[in-house]
Amino acid sequence: MTDFILSCSECRREFELRSKNWKCPECESPLSLGIESYPKVQNFSELVEKREISLWRYKALLPFFDYKTSLGEGLTPVVKHKDGKREIYFKLEFLAPTGSFKDRGAATGVARAKGIGARTIVEDSSGNAGLAYAAYAASAGIQARIYVPADAPVAKRKLMKACGANVVECSTREEATRRAISEVKEDEIYVGHIWDPFFLEGMKTEVFELLEFNKMDFDSIIVPTSSGSHLLGIYRGLEDLIEMGLIEQSPRFFAVQAGGVTPLYDKLHGKWTGGDGSLADGLRVRMPPRLNEVLDVVRKTDGDVLVVDNSEIIQAMRKLYRMGLIVEPTSATAYAASKKIEGTEKVLIPLTGTGMKTLDKIYIL
Amino acid sequence: MTDFILSCSECRREFELRSKNWKCPECESPLSLGIESYPKVQNFSELVEKREISLWRYKALLPFFDYKTSLGEGLTPVVKHKDGKREIYFKLEFLAPTGSFKDRGAATGVARAKGIGARTIVEDSSGNAGLAYAAYAASAGIQARIYVPADAPVAKRKLMKACGANVVECSTREEATRRAISEVKEDEIYVGHIWDPFFLEGMKTEVFELLEFNKMDFDSIIVPTSSGSHLLGIYRGLEDLIEMGLIEQSPRFFAVQAGGVTPLYDKLHGKWTGGDGSLADGLRVRMPPRLNEVLDVVRKTDGDVLVVDNSEIIQAMRKLYRMGLIVEPTSATAYAASKKIEGTEKVLIPLTGTGMKTLDKIYIL
Repeated sequence: MTDFILSCSECRREFELRSKNWKCPECESPLSLGIESYPKVQNFSELVEKREISLWRYKALLPFFDYKTSLGEGLTPVVKHKDGKREIYFKLEFLAPTGSFKDRGAATGVARAKGIGARTIVEDSSGNAGLAYAAYAASAGIQARIYVPADAPVAKRKLMKACGANVVECSTREEATRRAISEVKEDEIYVGHIWDPFFLEGMKTEVFELLEFNKMDFDSIIVPTSSGSHLLGIYRGLEDLIEMGLIEQSPRFFAVQAGGVTPLYDKLHGKWTGGDGSLADGLRVRMPPRLNEVLDVVRKTDGDVLVVDNSEIIQAMRKLYRMGLIVEPTSATAYAASKKIEGTEKVLIPLTGTGMKTLDKIYIL
Repeated sequence: MTDFILSCSECRREFELRSKNWKCPECESPLSLGIESYPKVQNFSELVEKREISLWRYKALLPFFDYKTSLGEGLTPVVKHKDGKREIYFKLEFLAPTGSFKDRGAATGVARAKGIGARTIVEDSSGNAGLAYAAYAASAGIQARIYVPADAPVAKRKLMKACGANVVECSTREEATRRAISEVKEDEIYVGHIWDPFFLEGMKTEVFELLEFNKMDFDSIIVPTSSGSHLLGIYRGLEDLIEMGLIEQSPRFFAVQAGGVTPLYDKLHGKWTGGDGSLADGLRVRMPPRLNEVLDVVRKTDGDVLVVDNSEIIQAMRKLYRMGLIVEPTSATAYAASKKIEGTEKVLIPLTGTGMKTLDKIYIL
């Protein structure tokens, strides 16, 4: 059994693992999970539950509260693409029960919520994460209340309701977060994915799969980045593998934002002034609580923050469809950004969300 | 290397494995693939390529022409559901690159077409299969021309075009088949999935996964059935496993049709006279060329053909969404039909297509 520590990402104050806190009551920073002592293994495969087709295949490295919820997320395939001299490995994260990488985090997030006795989870989302939580709550037999901005894609809202979630419409993305947090009742739990460290744990498994089924020798990873949960989760997984001596070092991390909402870029390079990237409706978090954590990863891996606009997104999306890869505009940002990076030869790009929830945008192709 | 035989399913005349024939030129019956000599193994796992996340994991039991196309189809998870005293195992075939089980057949079908040198494939489809072929042709770098009926779901047609396919609109499903066949040029190949035995081979892998990751001890399998390619492909896989001595016998096969298009039921039980089931837009083939083959499987496994109507489909779909399973109406038919079957305890239901391509129908929930 792997021992986890829950602590504040800033002041390092520690909390009970079964705590319902979603931020540090002292300094208001997001919480982090870490592993106290790693299982001793010669070979990664000793840790793998080989008959499991879900992220619980790697239960040995996940926090576990005697309840696992799964709709079969994870074990996503990798499609290799030769892009000039560069080899790009697309990891098809959109092949997920609700169509996005968020299912990994919802699986671990809901399992923990149910595992510590919650009957209702509360989440805020511009779309994909909300749907993931709605479906996983349904699967776990608990209630979900999801706060969404008024301009969240209609299809995603319809699907949340079909899964039985209570969907609360708010004016903006920020208002959705504010109301979600303030309206949580005593017997409910706030699992907002932009805060919840248990959500991040689900993401780790993406890296474990790469180690098990591919070679973990990418020189770069390019990730569409909004709250940063995906990028940080992947990095968490790499830290685990490095700690266990299974890989030597981390690839360079490139975070991609879309013109119009560029908090990471702005902090690193100064205010971005290029064109609009609003087609990427999944990249909308203006004040990511883990902004500093993301920039830390980018800096210490010699990566960067890149910004793309709508015309670049459309061009990338068109190319992906002509490879048979049906993704949403948000997912195409990373491939678009790859054109701006030099000195990389073997690149990993997770394709984060299916194009089937955003068919109203297919006119752009 | 496993040796395959291509022959007529009726008169048993044999053909070159690289033949472009799509039916028997003598008796006009569909062709079948069989295995001449099976690999000798103690254990199924000896045949598995363990680092492959796609159906080529089971390449040892698939016909192979030195070209494999893959978008990471297969390795679909299984979600267990307790339905009264019965255990239902949903195999999530909708977790596929283009959102349906057809991707398995398109992977093997396109690989064979490209492997024998075709530059253009020609297909007819009411939607899902057409999209699968469009995406896999794009991935293989060859051209696809897809004939669709005028009432094929708009989303599916849009997606085919976005993947670069040439989409030809026809008045009816039958007209689509007729034109597709008659307009194939010398250097093209007709891969119509309701005829092509190489399409069926892809389906086999569903059973191989069940053997590798679960227990293959279901007493029944319930499959939505139109052309019968899915049901027959699953049965082909079971035959392989029985021949190799890896399982003892086949479960009972139940084929499900939707009110309005019930050729299998009609032939077995006499004209069906119940309500309309047109919500299941994937079950539209009125004259399946392999009708006798399907009925053979149903009879010899002590199964049956069942019919459901729209109200039963809606009820089943609603329940599936409340389990977090986002499927299209066609997929819900099998779960709906399970209510009509007695004497089964452990049931396999493949959930065949995602609900995300048919969001216009979500109003029914």
